[in-house]
Amino acid sequence: MTDITFRHAQASDLPTIISMLADDDLGAKREDASLPVNQKYRTAFEAIDKDPNQYLAVVEQAEEIIGCLQLTFIPGLSRLGMWRGQIESVRIASSHRGSGLGSQMFEWAIAECRNRGCELVQLTTDKARPDALKFYGKLGFEASHEGMKLSLD
Amino acid sequence: MTDITFRHAQASDLPTIISMLADDDLGAKREDASLPVNQKYRTAFEAIDKDPNQYLAVVEQAEEIIGCLQLTFIPGLSRLGMWRGQIESVRIASSHRGSGLGSQMFEWAIAECRNRGCELVQLTTDKARPDALKFYGKLGFEASHEGMKLSLD
Repeated sequence: MTDITFRHAQASDLPTIISMLADDDLGAKREDASLPVNQKYRTAFEAIDKDPNQYLAVVEQAEEIIGCLQLTFIPGLSRLGMWRGQIESVRIASSHRGSGLGSQMFEWAIAECRNRGCELVQLTTDKARPDALKFYGKLGFEASHEGMKLSLD
Repeated sequence: MTDITFRHAQASDLPTIISMLADDDLGAKREDASLPVNQKYRTAFEAIDKDPNQYLAVVEQAEEIIGCLQLTFIPGLSRLGMWRGQIESVRIASSHRGSGLGSQMFEWAIAECRNRGCELVQLTTDKARPDALKFYGKLGFEASHEGMKLSLD
């Protein structure tokens, strides 16, 4: 087990987080890791930071950020007013992939959802990432649903 | 085209909304449509109602509620700080199914997401509902992702 800590992301973490988002086959085409940080990221960070149902987390080891993820806590009426926890934008620094860090991050994320009263945790995973699907299956997630996306470009 | 209007749900709409949630093969086992309204639904409604990134909508025709859906607007860093709109808990009164109302509700929901600055609309659909999958495909949604769920019971 790696000795890691989790905390809320701060604006000063943005360059590191964005470089992790960009360091990925799919992410490289979509992100802008140039400095100074693109204003679009700053605006988005403010919206996340002020929303108590968002938890953008960074994972640190020896004061270095080695991963990030975003939790969204969603209240709903169905299933007797069940809250859902949703996990999005999970990234691990390339130097730390394959170290078991992903499992630790998901254990933390699931526990955090439980603490917030969620009875279900959900995420979608791109069908182009078969390894991720296998990983989530091992954590107990079931691929019971289709994840449908509509781009509004 | 049916002449319908959309508005934010109010607490007084709960009995009608809950009866729609329960009037469904999967919903019948999960919901409690008894009166007075189960406190769990009231608590959940308050959480939804006070969160500016939730829009629980009812659809009316001649002052009768004939459908409901919930939109969640999710800020995120990835894809240059893109907002996502998420659609959940779509229900149509049994008397109005097959009338084209579903398409009208999704057109409204997608437009609402666009108004809120979302560049992507997403939802998950149970693989046990093949007709729903076909319906979403016609609206332009792509089944590009697996929808993974983990129950915390």
